[in-house]
Order: sequence, then C-alpha cells, then structure tokens
Amino acid sequence: MGRISLDAIEELACAALVAANTSQANARSVAAALVAADADGLASHGVSRVPFYADQAASGKVNGHAVPRLEQPAAAALRVDAADGFAYPAIRVGLERAVGVAADAGVAALSIANSHHCGACGYHVEQVAARGLVALGFSNTPAGIAPWGGSRGSFGTNPIGFACPRHAQPPLVVDLSLSAVARGKVMLAEKRGEAIPEGWALDAEGRPTTDPRAALSGTMVPIGGAKGAALAMMVELLTAALAGSNFAFEASSFFSAEGPPPRVAQTFLVMSPQAFGASAFLDRVEALVADVHSQAGARLPGDRRYAKRADARARGVEIGDDLLAELRRRAGA
Amino acid sequence: MGRISLDAIEELACAALVAANTSQANARSVAAALVAADADGLASHGVSRVPFYADQAASGKVNGHAVPRLEQPAAAALRVDAADGFAYPAIRVGLERAVGVAADAGVAALSIANSHHCGACGYHVEQVAARGLVALGFSNTPAGIAPWGGSRGSFGTNPIGFACPRHAQPPLVVDLSLSAVARGKVMLAEKRGEAIPEGWALDAEGRPTTDPRAALSGTMVPIGGAKGAALAMMVELLTAALAGSNFAFEASSFFSAEGPPPRVAQTFLVMSPQAFGASAFLDRVEALVADVHSQAGARLPGDRRYAKRADARARGVEIGDDLLAELRRRAGA
Repeated sequence: MGRISLDAIEELACAALVAANTSQANARSVAAALVAADADGLASHGVSRVPFYADQAASGKVNGHAVPRLEQPAAAALRVDAADGFAYPAIRVGLERAVGVAADAGVAALSIANSHHCGACGYHVEQVAARGLVALGFSNTPAGIAPWGGSRGSFGTNPIGFACPRHAQPPLVVDLSLSAVARGKVMLAEKRGEAIPEGWALDAEGRPTTDPRAALSGTMVPIGGAKGAALAMMVELLTAALAGSNFAFEASSFFSAEGPPPRVAQTFLVMSPQAFGASAFLDRVEALVADVHSQAGARLPGDRRYAKRADARARGVEIGDDLLAELRRRAGA
Repeated sequence: MGRISLDAIEELACAALVAANTSQANARSVAAALVAADADGLASHGVSRVPFYADQAASGKVNGHAVPRLEQPAAAALRVDAADGFAYPAIRVGLERAVGVAADAGVAALSIANSHHCGACGYHVEQVAARGLVALGFSNTPAGIAPWGGSRGSFGTNPIGFACPRHAQPPLVVDLSLSAVARGKVMLAEKRGEAIPEGWALDAEGRPTTDPRAALSGTMVPIGGAKGAALAMMVELLTAALAGSNFAFEASSFFSAEGPPPRVAQTFLVMSPQAFGASAFLDRVEALVADVHSQAGARLPGDRRYAKRADARARGVEIGDDLLAELRRRAGA
C-alpha cells in the first residue's frame, strides 16, 4: 500500500476509462469525482470503482461517449437525459444550469434520467454550496431495502446529500445512505467468513440474519426501521418516478458488466438563501455551528472528511497495491 | 372513553380556541388539522394539543389573531411570516400559492418564518399531493436531538413529510420524525414508573439511559445514529436558517404557556411532475406500489392511517373522558 498524489491517481483513472471506450471529457469528469471520494476517505466510492465502470463501458452497458442532453421544460425545472452514460457529466451539466436558475427564481429542481451510479452524493451538492446556494440531492440505486414488513428490495439504499454554504469555510455537507450500515461491510464479513451483528441485514424471507451470505441474497436493514424504508420509497418517487427511469427493483447492478443499463435517476433541489431575502443566512448557519462546537466531543457531519481531504492534498492517498497495479495495467501505464 | 363525530370534536376544539383569544378563522384552521390527526390515529398531534395551544393563545405566547403575511421574493420562492401565530393558517396560505407557482415553474419553495408547532407534517403535504403535485415538508422543533458525540439538543426531532399523488387513490404519504421513538413514549414510561429500553434516549451527559427521568432531561436517540443527527441538522438549516427564525436550541416549548414565542420554521418544496414532462408519472407510481403489494406482509407508509381515517369518518373518534370534559369546559359547551 503506497501513497500516490491526487493528480497522479486521477490521470491513471482517466486513462483506464479512456482505454475502455470512454470519451476524454467523460473520463475526466468520472475520474475527478472518484478521486475526490478517495481524498475524503470514502474508498468504496473512489477509484476502486474504475475496474467496474471500465468493464461496463467496454461492454456497452454504460455509453462512455454519451453526451448529456439538458432541457428546461419549465422556468425552474431542469431535466438532463444522461443517455445511459455516466452520471457525473450529466449531473455537472445540470447543476451548472441549476445554480443560475435558482439564483434568479429562488429554487431550481433538476431531474437526471437514464443515469448510473452517482458516487458520493455529497460531492455534487458540495460544489453547489461552494457557490453560495443550498442543495439537496437524492439518487436511487439497485435493490437493497425492502418495504416495511416485506422481503424483497423494492427500494435502493438511496443516498441523500445536503450541503449548505458557510462564512469563509468549506460547506456543511450531509451524505448518507438509508441502510443502517453499508452493504460493503456485509461483503467484507462474507469474504472473511465472519458473522455480522444483528440489525445489519435481513435474509431473503425478510428475517433478521447474522449470516453474511444470507444477508447478501436478502436486503439491508433501513435506518430507523419503518422510517428508513419510508424514506427509501420517498427517494424512489422523487428520482425514478419523476425522471421516468428505473426503480431500484428494475435496475441492473452498478458492478456487473452484464445486462441492460441500470437507468436509475437523481434529483437535485437548489435554493438561493439570498433570493429568499435571508440576508443573515450565513450568520445563522454559524450560530448553529457554534452551538454544536460548544459541546465537548460533538462533531459536524463532514468534519472527518475535510480533515482527510487536507491530508490527501498534502501527502496523497493510499491505494492498495493490487488496485494500483490493475489501474496501471488498464491505463497501459 | 366515548366516540364522538369528527364534526362535533372539531366544533369543540374550535370553540375552545376562540374562547382563548383566537380569531374564528385561525381557530378553524387549527381545529381542522388537529381533528385530522385524531382521525388518522395520531392522537399526540390531535385535539390533545388544544389545552396547550389555548393556554398559549391566552398568555400571548401565540398570537391567536395573527394574519399570515405572504411574499414572493423571487419567481419560485415564497415566504410567509406566521407573525408569531399558529402554523396552520400560515402554511395553508403559503401552500395555496405554492401549488400555482409549481404548476407553472415546475417547482416552488416555501419558507414559513416565526412559526409554531405544525402538527403532523403529513397533513400539509397530503393536501398538495391531492391536487396532483409532489410535496416535501420540513419543520424544526424545540431541542430534542444532540449533535453526534454531543450531549445537548442543538436540533429538534424535526419531522419530514412527503406526499405523492396516485391514480384514483389517496396520496402516498410519508411522515416521520428523526428520533428513534417519540418523546411521548418516554413521558408515558416516566408517568408509569417504568424503565425505557436502551436505544431510545440519552441522559444530559449524552450517555445511553434506561431511566425515563434522566432521558427527559437529556436528548432522544436519532434514527440511524450519526445519520439521523445529520438529517436533524439538515432540517434546522433548511427551515430556521432560511427563514431567519429560531433554531431548536433557541426555541421555547410547544407545551408551556410561558416564555417568548417558539418562532420555529417550516419549509416546503412543491414539484409538478407534469411540468417536468413526466407524462407517465402516475403509472410509474403504481408500478412501485404494485411491487410493494406483491410482497406478503409489506405495507405502504400511510396504509394504517387511511384505514383509521375511514373508520373515524364512519364512526367518529375515541377521545378520553378527561380531555373531552376539558374541551367542553373551555368551549363553554
């Protein structure tokens, strides 16, 4: 496990994608987002995804040359057809316009159709907040959470992202999925032959299980039980129903290169505090932050990510030897 | 405990509020919302609140004669100053306009400032969805949830509401607060001298407790641990910061008649699927509902509330004898 600079790993990721039938522009957009996740300590949404993404681009499950198509069907409504390409370039095009619309109209809603894995949801909303606006983001994902009382994954683990600007500080960012723990933890336990704690997952009959293999053919326990399942359904409706894209139970895997495109969806809501006349908005945000910081041990969401990011910018990130070798091989480097 | 018709209990609630220095129009708006909660089986947000509301109107903590002031600071941005009155009339005025704005612009954002307890958040969003639009609603509340790792309630238990229209069926409604269980359950255990399960609450030092008294001077455990605390912070920023109103840690109680007005805030986001060109939207919603209903035992959020509502409309609701006597006394009936 060696350290590598953010620039160097981004070049490798980019080249590996370009080598797999992806346009330079799309590969750059994808690689920048993945490396940002690695820098923030979110390795599961980082360049570890490149082999999966590249195989899907090579097989045609993702169209690496897709050009997102932006429409504005109403004054504050934006729609981007990701055209079975990667999510990142489609979201970038849409949010770029959404920032301008929200600054004028007070709010903009952006629906991304026929999309793919959006990575860390916080990545997208943080960029909006860095420009002084408040952003909410939702994505659906392939099946992972059962309706309450049910057994099959009607809903995805469906991340919610939120970001809010601050005075002379990077934005406050919330980024979470609606499962109590990440499915990756179950996969790791299965690999190691270890049991998982109760409360992580349900088997294919909807019963609590401590067997990681049974869990992987079942569903993940949602946060707050019925509440998390309800939020997961809400995200399906806000994203896939609005975009006319696939629900979780219809979507193919983000990992396999087989099958049709996942065609999931994202929705973003961007608001301008200024347009609401909230002139003291940033002062109020700092008042809330101060109340949190006045408590010993209390943490703001994102505190740890920013600490890791600063370290990664100064010293690079640690990438496993096997993954690094694979990226080099794919990049022809 | 006797049954009483919805009309009769609404008249009583309305008269009790009018007797406590509240305008007829405001009392009607409040009473209708509270009785709707009782009909849905949500007694903690029903007419059990009337004595508290009435005492606050009598003491002047709530201005029962407030007239909400609506502004449209930008094309899709609405702001209502609840003017230290009840939340219900302010939300009604705002959502009425928001429906029209969203139908044209695709989305509308509504900020309610200087507000009070909004009751069941689902009540408000359901009315928007009954008119064919999708609605998200957020409210902050007095302190109830600590920042992750902290011990004091910087954030409220902060309900999130969501509603989505259906074909020839009442809307799908999600309505939940961000604490694992309602604080009312802790109050009940304290009254009965019973211990509470671990995982419900933290004491004033932020440690898990099974003592309901220690819990009541501490905070509630958020759903999903750090995730729920992050969502609670998100709601504070989306509501109070945007409205320039009080954060949870600054807000006075919804129960006591003492002190300054709570001045909490609500925010609603209304979207028009039609304006997004989502012509098959309602068909897609039914596809998701069908997948849920194909699973034995699976429930949609709101299923039980609608069953209770149908029963309440046919047979009235059960109201405790003491509460009914108190409402009659206050109403001079």
